[in-house]
Amino acid sequence: MNHFHEDLQAIYEEMVGWRRYLHQHPELSYHEYQTAEFVAKHLLSWDIEVRTGVGGNGVVGLLRGAGEGPTVALRADMDALPIQDEKNCDYTSTKSGIMHACGHDAHTSTLLGIAKVASMHRTELRGNLVFLFQHAEEISPGGADSMIQDGALDGVDAVFGVHLWTPFPVGHVYTRSGAFMAAPDEFTIRVQGKGGHGGLPHQTIDSVYVASQLVVNLQSIVSRQVDPVEPCVVSVGSFHGGTSFNVIAETSVLNGTVRTFNPELRQEVQTRMERIVQATCDMSQATYELEYKLGYPTVINDENEATRFFRVAASLFGEEAVHESPLIMAGEDFSYYLQKKPGCFMFVGAGNVESGIVYPHHHPKFDIDERSMLNAANLLLSMALDYMA
Amino acid sequence: MNHFHEDLQAIYEEMVGWRRYLHQHPELSYHEYQTAEFVAKHLLSWDIEVRTGVGGNGVVGLLRGAGEGPTVALRADMDALPIQDEKNCDYTSTKSGIMHACGHDAHTSTLLGIAKVASMHRTELRGNLVFLFQHAEEISPGGADSMIQDGALDGVDAVFGVHLWTPFPVGHVYTRSGAFMAAPDEFTIRVQGKGGHGGLPHQTIDSVYVASQLVVNLQSIVSRQVDPVEPCVVSVGSFHGGTSFNVIAETSVLNGTVRTFNPELRQEVQTRMERIVQATCDMSQATYELEYKLGYPTVINDENEATRFFRVAASLFGEEAVHESPLIMAGEDFSYYLQKKPGCFMFVGAGNVESGIVYPHHHPKFDIDERSMLNAANLLLSMALDYMA
Amino acid sequence: MNHFHEDLQAIYEEMVGWRRYLHQHPELSYHEYQTAEFVAKHLLSWDIEVRTGVGGNGVVGLLRGAGEGPTVALRADMDALPIQDEKNCDYTSTKSGIMHACGHDAHTSTLLGIAKVASMHRTELRGNLVFLFQHAEEISPGGADSMIQDGALDGVDAVFGVHLWTPFPVGHVYTRSGAFMAAPDEFTIRVQGKGGHGGLPHQTIDSVYVASQLVVNLQSIVSRQVDPVEPCVVSVGSFHGGTSFNVIAETSVLNGTVRTFNPELRQEVQTRMERIVQATCDMSQATYELEYKLGYPTVINDENEATRFFRVAASLFGEEAVHESPLIMAGEDFSYYLQKKPGCFMFVGAGNVESGIVYPHHHPKFDIDERSMLNAANLLLSMALDYMA
Amino acid sequence: MNHFHEDLQAIYEEMVGWRRYLHQHPELSYHEYQTAEFVAKHLLSWDIEVRTGVGGNGVVGLLRGAGEGPTVALRADMDALPIQDEKNCDYTSTKSGIMHACGHDAHTSTLLGIAKVASMHRTELRGNLVFLFQHAEEISPGGADSMIQDGALDGVDAVFGVHLWTPFPVGHVYTRSGAFMAAPDEFTIRVQGKGGHGGLPHQTIDSVYVASQLVVNLQSIVSRQVDPVEPCVVSVGSFHGGTSFNVIAETSVLNGTVRTFNPELRQEVQTRMERIVQATCDMSQATYELEYKLGYPTVINDENEATRFFRVAASLFGEEAVHESPLIMAGEDFSYYLQKKPGCFMFVGAGNVESGIVYPHHHPKFDIDERSMLNAANLLLSMALDYMA
Repeated sequence: MNHFHEDLQAIYEEMVGWRRYLHQHPELSYHEYQTAEFVAKHLLSWDIEVRTGVGGNGVVGLLRGAGEGPTVALRADMDALPIQDEKNCDYTSTKSGIMHACGHDAHTSTLLGIAKVASMHRTELRGNLVFLFQHAEEISPGGADSMIQDGALDGVDAVFGVHLWTPFPVGHVYTRSGAFMAAPDEFTIRVQGKGGHGGLPHQTIDSVYVASQLVVNLQSIVSRQVDPVEPCVVSVGSFHGGTSFNVIAETSVLNGTVRTFNPELRQEVQTRMERIVQATCDMSQATYELEYKLGYPTVINDENEATRFFRVAASLFGEEAVHESPLIMAGEDFSYYLQKKPGCFMFVGAGNVESGIVYPHHHPKFDIDERSMLNAANLLLSMALDYMA
Repeated sequence: MNHFHEDLQAIYEEMVGWRRYLHQHPELSYHEYQTAEFVAKHLLSWDIEVRTGVGGNGVVGLLRGAGEGPTVALRADMDALPIQDEKNCDYTSTKSGIMHACGHDAHTSTLLGIAKVASMHRTELRGNLVFLFQHAEEISPGGADSMIQDGALDGVDAVFGVHLWTPFPVGHVYTRSGAFMAAPDEFTIRVQGKGGHGGLPHQTIDSVYVASQLVVNLQSIVSRQVDPVEPCVVSVGSFHGGTSFNVIAETSVLNGTVRTFNPELRQEVQTRMERIVQATCDMSQATYELEYKLGYPTVINDENEATRFFRVAASLFGEEAVHESPLIMAGEDFSYYLQKKPGCFMFVGAGNVESGIVYPHHHPKFDIDERSMLNAANLLLSMALDYMA
Repeated sequence: MNHFHEDLQAIYEEMVGWRRYLHQHPELSYHEYQTAEFVAKHLLSWDIEVRTGVGGNGVVGLLRGAGEGPTVALRADMDALPIQDEKNCDYTSTKSGIMHACGHDAHTSTLLGIAKVASMHRTELRGNLVFLFQHAEEISPGGADSMIQDGALDGVDAVFGVHLWTPFPVGHVYTRSGAFMAAPDEFTIRVQGKGGHGGLPHQTIDSVYVASQLVVNLQSIVSRQVDPVEPCVVSVGSFHGGTSFNVIAETSVLNGTVRTFNPELRQEVQTRMERIVQATCDMSQATYELEYKLGYPTVINDENEATRFFRVAASLFGEEAVHESPLIMAGEDFSYYLQKKPGCFMFVGAGNVESGIVYPHHHPKFDIDERSMLNAANLLLSMALDYMA
Repeated sequence: MNHFHEDLQAIYEEMVGWRRYLHQHPELSYHEYQTAEFVAKHLLSWDIEVRTGVGGNGVVGLLRGAGEGPTVALRADMDALPIQDEKNCDYTSTKSGIMHACGHDAHTSTLLGIAKVASMHRTELRGNLVFLFQHAEEISPGGADSMIQDGALDGVDAVFGVHLWTPFPVGHVYTRSGAFMAAPDEFTIRVQGKGGHGGLPHQTIDSVYVASQLVVNLQSIVSRQVDPVEPCVVSVGSFHGGTSFNVIAETSVLNGTVRTFNPELRQEVQTRMERIVQATCDMSQATYELEYKLGYPTVINDENEATRFFRVAASLFGEEAVHESPLIMAGEDFSYYLQKKPGCFMFVGAGNVESGIVYPHHHPKFDIDERSMLNAANLLLSMALDYMA
C-alpha cells in the first residue's frame, strides 16, 4: 500500500474540518448520538461496512482488504467533558458547559481520515482494518468493555490506539512496553460520628476531626507501606462535613482516587485503606462506610507491539522524535482491548509552546496543535500495515 | 411588698397562656416585630411606661415605685430559632422552620408575669423596676449591646436575668460567682492551595490535605498550649473542600468556634491559632485567610450578687435546690449588661425526665416544664426586692 | 495556749539551722535513715513519745496534752531528690547528685519547731498533737499510705499539712476547698513493630512512625474527649526508638503522665488511652504493651477544714494574704491522709523575686525564703489549736 | 584467552578457603589492615604489580597483558560490619562484634581468584586488568572516592563490579541500564523546645510532641510532593527525646535516611524537608538544627555496558538466568567509579532457600551460597575480556 502518507497529507485540511465541526458540537459521555451518526455517515460514504449502537453509542467500521491477512483494529474515542469552553477562537463549543477538552474530537477525526485513505487503497490491503469509534471513555465503566462484549473485537488480531497529548511537543511520539497508564480507582469514605454542641466536644464524636486524621493517616500507604519502586498515589479530592461553626458535624464524607500500575499492589492498597479507615474510626468510636470502586485496569502494552512502535515510529519520525514514555498516572479504558488482544497504546505529542498550546487536558482553554492529527494518522496506519506485513 | 408569691401563683395560668401563644408565633432574631408589640401592649395595659424600638426591636418597661430606692433591671430575651418544630402537642409553632427551641418565649412570659404582679404592688415598691425585653440574643452581635447603647441601662443600679435550662431538673436553681458562661468566638480559615490532577499531587498544593493537618494541629492549642485549669475549646464545625474524586481541591474552608472564660486566654488562643494556621500552610506552600470574629464576652457574675442569689434562692426553694453551677460552655449576651452593672445571671431548672421533657436546647423537640416559669418569676422578683431592701 | 507565736519566733534561727543542716545532708526517698534519726533524737529530747520505722522510715511523735480534747496530726515529708545542687551558698548539698530541691528539709524543720514549742506548752494543751514525719513523698507508692497502714493515723481526728511553694510569694498562703492537687499517673507504651532496611519501609512496621502518630493522637483525649471544664493533662515525657539512621526501629517506647482531679475522668482517660493505642497500632499492624500505673489520689480538702483555713489564716496574716488557690497539677500523697480523716493541705508562699528566690521546685537552683517556715509553723499550729478549741 | 572458566573452576576451593579465612578475620571500615596485607601478599605472589595504601587502606593491582588493548578495572570491597556473628558453622567470625555480614569477604576472594587466573593467562591478554581492592564501602564518605583521588582509575577505560545478593537465588544475575542503586543520604534533626513539668505543658515547648508531628509531616514528602513515578523514601530510623515520664523533654533528636535516584529530586527533597521542619517547629515556637549529609551518589550504569552485561551474561548463564533488576534502594560507592568511567555494577544471586541461605544482608546470620563466587568471577572476567575484544 503505497502513497498513503501523501494521501493523508492530502486530506489533512478535511480532517481539520471534521475536528473543528466536532469541537463545536461536543456530546457528553453516553450521549454521543450526533457524533456517532456523523461517523457512521462518513464511513458509509466510503463503502465501509458499519455497525452502529455497538455496546451503546459505539460505531464499528470494517474495511475488508483485497488480500488475505490479519485483522487489525484501530480505536478512537468520541465523548466530550462537562467543562465550559474558555478558548478564544472561531471553533469554540456551541454547547454551554460541554467541551472537547481532552482531544477526542481529534482522535475521531484522525481515525476518519485513516478510514478514508485506507478505503482508497483497499485493493492493496492484505488483511482487514476495523475502525473502533468508541463512546464514553471519560466515565467509568466506559464504552470499551461494553463494545468488546458486543463483539467489537471478534476476529481482530491486534489493536492500536493513540492519545494526542499536549504536555508532549508536537512531532514527538511516546510509549513504553508493559505497564504504561495507571488503574484509576475511586473511593468514598463516609465517617459517621455523633453531632452536638461545638462547646461540648466530649459529648460528641467529631466526624470532621476523625476524617481529618484519616486524610493524614492515608498518606502512610504511599510513604510507608508501598514498595518505593512501585508508583502509587492515594489522593483525597473532596472533604465535606458539617454545616455550622458551632455544631460538631455528625458525618463527613471523603472522596478520592487511588492510582496503581501493579494489580497486586492495587489489591493491597484496598486492604491497607480499609485497615486505616477502620482503625482511625475505632480510635474515636466513629463508624464508617467505605465504598471502593474499581476503575479501568492498567494499560499494559504488549512487549512485541511496543517494539514494533519503536521501529515503525523511528522510520516515520526519526530516532530523535521517538521516546520511551514515563509511566502515566492517568487511566484509559483502552486497557480492556489490551486485555483481549496484543496491541499498543501510544501518545502523540500535541503541545506547542510557541503557539500557546500549553493547556493541560481537561483545562477550559485546552487545545491541540492540529498537525498532531496527521502524525497520529501516519503512526496508526503504519502500525497496522507493519503488523499485516 | 407582700403576697407577691401568691399573686404570681394566681396568674401562672395566664403566663402559660402567653408562653404558648408566643410559642405558636415565633419570630427570628432581628425580626421580633409581633412579639415586641405583644409585650408593649401588655405593659401599657398595666400602666407601665414603655419605650419600644430600643436598639432595634427591644422593649423597655419602667415601673416607678411609690417609695425611693434603687432601680433594678430584669431581662428577658424574645427571639426564636430557624429550626422546624417537631413536637407533638397543641401549641407547636405555626411557622414553618421557625421555633422557640431555646425557651425565650417562656423568658418573655415570665417577665410579663413579674411586670403584671409588680404593677399591682407599686405603692409598696421602694425603688423602680426596669423590664428589659431584648431582641436578638441568638445571633451575634446580639441585641443587648445595642439596647445598652440606646440607653436601656441608664439609671439602672443592678441587673438580673435567668435562663430556663432543661438539662437541669425543674425545682432547682443554679449560678456561680465570677466567670459563668463562655465567650463563644467564631473563626473561618480558607486554605488556598493549587488544584490539579488527583494522580499528580506533586504538581499541586493539596488544600484538603493541608486543612486536614490543620484540624489535627489545632488540637494542640487545648492539649499543649493552654493552662489545664483554664477551660478552653477549639472545635471545627465544618470542613468543605473539593468537588471531584480525582481532582486535587484548590481551596478548603474550615469554620469553627473557640470557647474561653479568661479574656487573656481568649487573646492568646487567637495568636496561637494564627501561628498554627500560618505554619501548617507554610509547610506545603499553601496560603490562607483567617477571619476571627469575637462573639459575646464571658458572662461574669458579680460576687456580691451571686452571694445574694445563694441566700435568696435558699429561702425560696430550700438549700437542697440551690447549686453552684459548673462553668457553662454556651455564651449569652447578658454579659454586656454585667460589664456595665453589678448583677447575676441564673439558671432555672426546666427539665423533667418523668414527663419526657429531656430534649436539649436547640433540639427540634425542645420543650420546658412550664412550672419553671413560676420558679423563675419568684426568683427574679425576689432578687430585685432583696436588692431594694 | 498563749505566746506560742512569740516562742516560734524565738526559735526561728534554730529552725533555720536545722533546715540548713538537712539541706546539706539530703537523703533520697526510701533512704531517709539519718534524717529520721535526726528527727527522732530531737523529739525525744523534748519528751515527746516517738515511734520510728513507721511504714518504712517514717517517724511519728505523740505529744499528749494535759487536757482532754481531740487528736490533731501535722505532717512533714523528709525525702530529697536525685538532682545536683547548683546553688551558690554555704549550705549547699554535700552529697553529689542529691538535693533538697522541693523544700522537704524546711517542712521537717518547721514541724520540729512546732513540736518543740508545743512541748513547752503541753500543760495548756487540750487534746493531743501527732507529728507525722513522713518518708518517701517523691516516689510512688509513697510513704503516706504505708505509714497509715502502720497505724500513723490511729486515734487521729484531723490532719493538716503544708507545702512551701516558691511560685507563690512569701507572706501569702493558699488553699481551696475540695479537689486541690492532681492525681499524677504514669503510663508506658511499648510499640512493637518490625525492623528492617530504612530504604524498604514496606517490608517493615515502622515503630517510630506509629509511636509518633500515637503522640499526636493522644492529644485528642484532652482536646476532644474530656469535658472542657475538667482539668486534664496527658503528656508524653520521653520517646525512645531506634539506633541507626538507616534501619527502621523495631520498637519504640513512650513514657508519660496523666493528671486528673476527677476519679471518674481518671478512669475514663485510661479507657480512652487504651483505645487510641490499640487503634493506632492496628492501623499499621504493630502490637503494643500499655502499662498504666496509678499514682497518688487527688488531694481533696475537707470543706469545713478549708473554711477553717480561710478564717484562721486571715486572722494570722490578714485578708489580703489569704487566697483561694487555683487547682495545682502536681500530686501529693497527703491525699491518703485526707481519704481517712478530715483535714486540709495548704500552700505557704516561699518565693521572693527581690532576693532572687525564683526557681521552681525540682530546679537545681531551688531555694526558699526561709521566713516561710515561720509562717508555716504559725499556720499549722494555729489550725491544730483552732480545731481543738 | 581460553580455558579461564575451567581455571576458575579449578581454584574454586581455594577461593572458598580465602573467603572463609577472611570471614573469620573481619575488619571494620577504615581498619582493613590485615585484609589489605592479605590481598597484597597474594597479588605479589602472582607477579602482579601492587600499590598499597591507596586512598587509605585500598590496594590496587595491575596486570599488564602481553598485547595492546584497553585497561579494565574490576573492583571488590574489603570491609566488615559492627555486627555480632550468630551463625552456627566452623568459619564464624573470631572477632566479637565484627562480622562480614554483607559478603565483602567473598567479593575480595572472588577478585583474588580472577587475579590469579588472569595472571596465568597474561600472555594471551590484549590490554591490562586493574584490580581495585577497596576499603570502607560501608561508611560514608567511603573508600571509592579517596582511591579515585589517589589515582586508582588513572589510565582505566572501563570499570566493573558485582555485589553478591542473597535476596536473589544463586545462579541468576541482574542489573539494569541507567539509574540502578539509590543515593542514600542521612539527616539529623534536633528539635529544641523548652523543658518543664509534665503537668504544666503550657509553660513548656514539648519537643517530643513537635518531633512526633515532624515524623508524621515528613510522610507528605513522598505521599504528596514527589512525582509518583520517581522512587523516593524518607525514613526516620531513630527518635530520642526525654528522660522522665513527668518532665517535658527539652530536646528530641531524629535521625533518618533519604533515598532517591534522581539528582534533582534529591535536591528537592532537602528543600522540602527543611520547609517542613521549619514550619513544624514554628507552629510550637520550637527551634531546630537540621544536618543533611549527602551519602553516595546514585549508581548509574552506562547504557552500553549494561547492554554488554545482558549479552555476556546470557551466553554464560543462559537467557533464563539473566534479569533486568528492579531499582535497588540500597546505596553503593561504586557510583563514584561510574561517575568517572563507563562501566556496570551487577548483582549476582547468592541466596539458596533449600540450603537455608535466606538471611538478608546485615543480618547476624547472614551467609552466602559460595558457588555465587564462581559465577561472579566468570561474569566479571568475561565482561572485562569482552570489553577488550
